[in-house]
Amino acid sequence: MKKRFLAIAIAAGLASPFAANADATVYGKINLSVGTVDEGNFGDDNWQVRSHASRLGVKGSEDLGNGLSATYKLEYGVSPDEGATGQNGGGDGGLSRRNQYVGLKGGFGEIRVGRHDTPLKMSQGKWDQFNDMDGDLGNISGGENRLDNVVAYLNKVGNVKFAVAIVPGEGDGQTTGGDGISDTISAMGAYSSGPLYVALAFDSYDDTTGGIADSEGFEDRTRLTAIYKMGKMQFGFIWEDSGAVTGGEDADGYGLNFAMGMGKNKVKFQYITGEDDADNEATLMSLGYDWGLSKRTTAYVSYNDYEAEDAAGNTGEEATTMVAGMIHKF
Amino acid sequence: MKKRFLAIAIAAGLASPFAANADATVYGKINLSVGTVDEGNFGDDNWQVRSHASRLGVKGSEDLGNGLSATYKLEYGVSPDEGATGQNGGGDGGLSRRNQYVGLKGGFGEIRVGRHDTPLKMSQGKWDQFNDMDGDLGNISGGENRLDNVVAYLNKVGNVKFAVAIVPGEGDGQTTGGDGISDTISAMGAYSSGPLYVALAFDSYDDTTGGIADSEGFEDRTRLTAIYKMGKMQFGFIWEDSGAVTGGEDADGYGLNFAMGMGKNKVKFQYITGEDDADNEATLMSLGYDWGLSKRTTAYVSYNDYEAEDAAGNTGEEATTMVAGMIHKF
Amino acid sequence: MKKRFLAIAIAAGLASPFAANADATVYGKINLSVGTVDEGNFGDDNWQVRSHASRLGVKGSEDLGNGLSATYKLEYGVSPDEGATGQNGGGDGGLSRRNQYVGLKGGFGEIRVGRHDTPLKMSQGKWDQFNDMDGDLGNISGGENRLDNVVAYLNKVGNVKFAVAIVPGEGDGQTTGGDGISDTISAMGAYSSGPLYVALAFDSYDDTTGGIADSEGFEDRTRLTAIYKMGKMQFGFIWEDSGAVTGGEDADGYGLNFAMGMGKNKVKFQYITGEDDADNEATLMSLGYDWGLSKRTTAYVSYNDYEAEDAAGNTGEEATTMVAGMIHKF
Repeated sequence: MKKRFLAIAIAAGLASPFAANADATVYGKINLSVGTVDEGNFGDDNWQVRSHASRLGVKGSEDLGNGLSATYKLEYGVSPDEGATGQNGGGDGGLSRRNQYVGLKGGFGEIRVGRHDTPLKMSQGKWDQFNDMDGDLGNISGGENRLDNVVAYLNKVGNVKFAVAIVPGEGDGQTTGGDGISDTISAMGAYSSGPLYVALAFDSYDDTTGGIADSEGFEDRTRLTAIYKMGKMQFGFIWEDSGAVTGGEDADGYGLNFAMGMGKNKVKFQYITGEDDADNEATLMSLGYDWGLSKRTTAYVSYNDYEAEDAAGNTGEEATTMVAGMIHKF
Repeated sequence: MKKRFLAIAIAAGLASPFAANADATVYGKINLSVGTVDEGNFGDDNWQVRSHASRLGVKGSEDLGNGLSATYKLEYGVSPDEGATGQNGGGDGGLSRRNQYVGLKGGFGEIRVGRHDTPLKMSQGKWDQFNDMDGDLGNISGGENRLDNVVAYLNKVGNVKFAVAIVPGEGDGQTTGGDGISDTISAMGAYSSGPLYVALAFDSYDDTTGGIADSEGFEDRTRLTAIYKMGKMQFGFIWEDSGAVTGGEDADGYGLNFAMGMGKNKVKFQYITGEDDADNEATLMSLGYDWGLSKRTTAYVSYNDYEAEDAAGNTGEEATTMVAGMIHKF
Repeated sequence: MKKRFLAIAIAAGLASPFAANADATVYGKINLSVGTVDEGNFGDDNWQVRSHASRLGVKGSEDLGNGLSATYKLEYGVSPDEGATGQNGGGDGGLSRRNQYVGLKGGFGEIRVGRHDTPLKMSQGKWDQFNDMDGDLGNISGGENRLDNVVAYLNKVGNVKFAVAIVPGEGDGQTTGGDGISDTISAMGAYSSGPLYVALAFDSYDDTTGGIADSEGFEDRTRLTAIYKMGKMQFGFIWEDSGAVTGGEDADGYGLNFAMGMGKNKVKFQYITGEDDADNEATLMSLGYDWGLSKRTTAYVSYNDYEAEDAAGNTGEEATTMVAGMIHKF
């Protein structure tokens, strides 16, 4: 299970027995919280134990020689709080598929085939201070997608990382859906140097009738991400614009955040807002504090407030959550 | 995957590569039997291959310093005989969630959050001689529960182990279900010294309208467990009383068992009976023999007889099973 | 996770910590392709990313002394391209059960209990040049089965391997399905010496009303497999005959294939055809080239053509696929 350890063993002359699976690493992350969820008059108002994108996976790579290597990952979302079928759904495994692919890596970059985050999602890098939590960017942005049937190309040249993914619509070739190899396209480029990280990304959905089209009715999307570090402080800005299919409403939004390290701990704040052309808007504000118990273990508290409002100023969905929890990576 | 081995490797100066997942242990238990199942006139009367609580999990812990450690477990029930959707249900994974949690352990004890056995279930310790088999205590007792959304606290002081778990009902805060943090409470204390183990435990369900309430309509439960060892022999007694919600019938029951080691093998007998206030009763009698093939592998045969009878003496469900099987832990 | 490595460690005096799971090996195989699928006028005509029997498992064995060992395997099919519920079915784990069993091995052979390939399926050995791909034998033959509730016995005597599996129908013992221990029987014998491999196998389904009966309405099946190696070349022949239940049509078919190694690479061709007594027929022709990137990693291209025709010469289902892909074992 430990590639590098086995490398050491191999160096010590114990090589051959390991050939079969020298590099399979079992890894995961469990993030559970206890807290209150108040969704106003029309939803929950209670205490909840919740899992936040907890996961379990197997990954590895193999040196093929000539500068080539094979890579793979099979990552599953897990549900330590409750199963897909709800409370005490002990009879369902509660598993979902996350990034799962096989890849080939070399001087030319890396090609991955399988289920994968879109480059536009990848482009935020480490922007999101409340990733997987109630303050997650994905609760406002429609661009946080992980898609099936992805063919992705990733590379890094100097200070610039880039990635392109194409996704066949897998329609039937006659009447429904796209039938090409690139019915959906997502691309990103990210420049990173010293304290600065800037990324630009695009999504394009040509296949608005098929299963892979953006589920919210958009045909394209642009995202700009910027992160700047100043000593123990980090400032972030993100902007996203989504173009609707005919008859829909375009939408755009932005986010700002700030984090400050305090020894092993961190205080953090994030504000994200979005609005469509019909003046429906939503805002999400989060405040949190992390205790770094180790590189792999973090305890946290956070407060999150979400509010949606239509053009006439009527309040729609709203949610206020206060949670305390722990993240453990293995 | 082997924490302790890696500890050795670390001592030998190979430490750094392992930091990422030094402690993830993949483990499991497969228990399959072949045998006859006769459920009388209204059920099966046939040969069956059956799995008995077979499982696969990942667990580990991390030393956080200062006497603290992070703990976790993700355990799944597996179905090597047939899937959740029945025979040759090859298209479903047949996985179910067992204990799954993240925890923090220190001088104060251990807090675990996730899906977990109730302390009342835990209180039986190693009482059940036919655990997971047809003679399992849970086939008579309603107290053998594993619940979602548990916050549990465990500790040991001298010869006394105790545990308390609270479970939010996660109702909607307005009309249905409990909305507090402790709609269900389960607690236990166990004293263990030399040949003697005695445990007392309670369940309390305040949330009889929500999803977490005892599914059989009880609002509280008390259990007493006693185990006494005398040389190669072990005697066990268990007693349980369940209080029904208004309009229901209270129920109580008890169990007796006996086991005797014979070298690496063991002969065992167990009798469990329960009755409600309306005189409906059920009894379960089991006789078994285990061959200890190693610490991790056991072959067994067992005979089990279950019979339910209503107040008028009419026979209800009945089942007689004779099975031979093997348990392998890894 | 590495049995043999741990064996070495044990020899070096580090034994005791590993006792708990010294032999659990996490392993798997990911096979993903990109290509075109053209099913004629009535199906897909598009580009697709597809997974071909990708899998993830845990297996191991334990030496019990006296020449005995315990064996086990829990293997799952995985879906890195898309889940069981279709495109972007991220909410389902996409897992299916493959061979899953616990076994006992000794001088007498090996007994396995669980879900397992039938001996008839096993009898093809390494015949199929397009195993798991569009050219797979199972796309014409009805004998490629993996069944639940199997009790299998495997042994090897000199140059002859044989296997027998019995499967209880698990009917209810009164009105439906078989209720014996051997409602389905599958058996094989294979002789292997130098360049030659010959195998003969039988299936018998006594239980045509139960869940385990052959899903295509056959009550027995016979298969003959032959493989001959000549230098870098391999020739294969397979023949199968299936007897229908009363009122059905018997069917038979055969397959021929050829492969030639070219350094680490391989060119291969396969033709399989089947016909029933009513003159409905189907043929499957495949041509492929494999690049051996390492023992564990293979890149490939293949062309496959399937065509079904009824007695009157009307074309039924047809499919032409061209794919490029990669297989990585770990």
